[in-house]
Amino acid sequence: MKVYLDCLPCFMRQALDAARMATHDPVAQRDVLDRVAKLLPMVPIDATPIDMGQIVHRLVREVTGVADPYARVKKESNDLGLKLYPRLKQRVRMSEDPLLTALKIAGAGNIIDFGPKLAMDANGSIEGVLNDSFTQALRGTLDQDQYNAFKERLAASEEVLYLGDNAGEIVCDRILIEELVKRGKEVIFVVRGAPAINDVTLADARYVGMERLATVVTNGSDAPGTRLSDCSPQFIEAFESAQLIISKGQGNFEGLSDTPRPIFFLFKVKCPVIAREIGARIGAVVLKEQVLEEVAK
Amino acid sequence: MKVYLDCLPCFMRQALDAARMATHDPVAQRDVLDRVAKLLPMVPIDATPIDMGQIVHRLVREVTGVADPYARVKKESNDLGLKLYPRLKQRVRMSEDPLLTALKIAGAGNIIDFGPKLAMDANGSIEGVLNDSFTQALRGTLDQDQYNAFKERLAASEEVLYLGDNAGEIVCDRILIEELVKRGKEVIFVVRGAPAINDVTLADARYVGMERLATVVTNGSDAPGTRLSDCSPQFIEAFESAQLIISKGQGNFEGLSDTPRPIFFLFKVKCPVIAREIGARIGAVVLKEQVLEEVAK
Repeated sequence: MKVYLDCLPCFMRQALDAARMATHDPVAQRDVLDRVAKLLPMVPIDATPIDMGQIVHRLVREVTGVADPYARVKKESNDLGLKLYPRLKQRVRMSEDPLLTALKIAGAGNIIDFGPKLAMDANGSIEGVLNDSFTQALRGTLDQDQYNAFKERLAASEEVLYLGDNAGEIVCDRILIEELVKRGKEVIFVVRGAPAINDVTLADARYVGMERLATVVTNGSDAPGTRLSDCSPQFIEAFESAQLIISKGQGNFEGLSDTPRPIFFLFKVKCPVIAREIGARIGAVVLKEQVLEEVAK
Repeated sequence: MKVYLDCLPCFMRQALDAARMATHDPVAQRDVLDRVAKLLPMVPIDATPIDMGQIVHRLVREVTGVADPYARVKKESNDLGLKLYPRLKQRVRMSEDPLLTALKIAGAGNIIDFGPKLAMDANGSIEGVLNDSFTQALRGTLDQDQYNAFKERLAASEEVLYLGDNAGEIVCDRILIEELVKRGKEVIFVVRGAPAINDVTLADARYVGMERLATVVTNGSDAPGTRLSDCSPQFIEAFESAQLIISKGQGNFEGLSDTPRPIFFLFKVKCPVIAREIGARIGAVVLKEQVLEEVAK
């Protein structure tokens, strides 16, 4: 997916959010903004939003000297996810269709995304926003055709390559992955190679016990989404040979929306640009199969 | 009021909105964004938001060659105001305290501001948003102490200098000014010297019949707010000698919040930066007397 003009002001806003996460020094915050502003005119029109996101968030780390500005909120999110885990598992267990419920929970968990700035309420709390997202998703529906296509592809696959997105959300991913494992699937869970906003890294996967369920691998990149040109050969190999890829979140969608692979995108729509691109409203949880023919054009 | 770091991404967003009002050409829109991005690192920390707003919107007009990008929405807003005028007048007439009701209507009308991007609903309609703003304001209260201070100052003044803000809103201003005139006050209504976002100019004042009620003068400036250093000597003279100044909107507040004159600010809070600055929530209609001692520090 190509960058929209709307993304340019948003990079400035993201840079300011990230700078504030990293430092209380207004001079350093301003320095970050100025450097991002100078970079914006150089963004080529065929860049993807995560190409630019990678540059912006590297710059924040470089200017502030803080290697992982979102470390604190990532830990908070993971702890919150683990706290809610028993209740969410109960919902899946009591459900008529546990796989569908687990998909909805994993999609709803994608609200914990510090890119588009919707993950916290006015009091800085993630929990209320997350609970609203669960309530909405569990009451709502997923597209039935997409869900049928997903079940069909899953039945035909022995292995699932699962592209993780955010901390906290990873506990919801664990719930979905437990359903996949229960159905005899081998799961490879992919994390970022280094901190990128509040995206999951190896440390988060360990923290929430993902390694007991799935093979956890990194993609070798610090882009806030899957930028194939930036990923490790090991990841590319797994990606090229995968029978089914579950791609979580907007960032992975931005990087892979034009890639002809057997991907199901699962995410919560959180910005007007993505809403326009995918034809859904902000707040919707979307499960969407990659349309290979369309991409092949 | 000094520029906040949050204003910098917002200037980019405003520039994009304005560029889209002026042209459908994405290359010109991108050109505007790139030029604004290059300017942002040069914004001094003691600039006011309207210093920068003036530069941004001049740049949009220069790059696109469109002298008044908001001409169409200004006309639409004025027509909408005139359509609603009889109903609003009726509310004032039926009211126990017509002056208070007229103040609330004038404050609520300040929602028609194309700077902060809240003036239209998802369907591009202003009317629904404006009606909600009236309902909210008429049900709500103004600060009683501020209102008492306003009435006291008004009683002691023969003349009122009224700094207008947006098209459409100007019809609500007319309703308040009719109450002032009824109380024997002479009113000077001030418009911008040239187009600035959707702010009122002489043409708008004529269009809504303001000249039949008040002496209409321009401030000689194309800043989207009152930037005294940019105003005409005639305006400065009227401003310096005024007994009571009613300053409508965020832009006039941004320019005058540190100026020791007998000003009552009247506006709807529409952005988080102003909300923080003034200690009110977004959506509130605020009537606030200039605190001269505080400013004098």
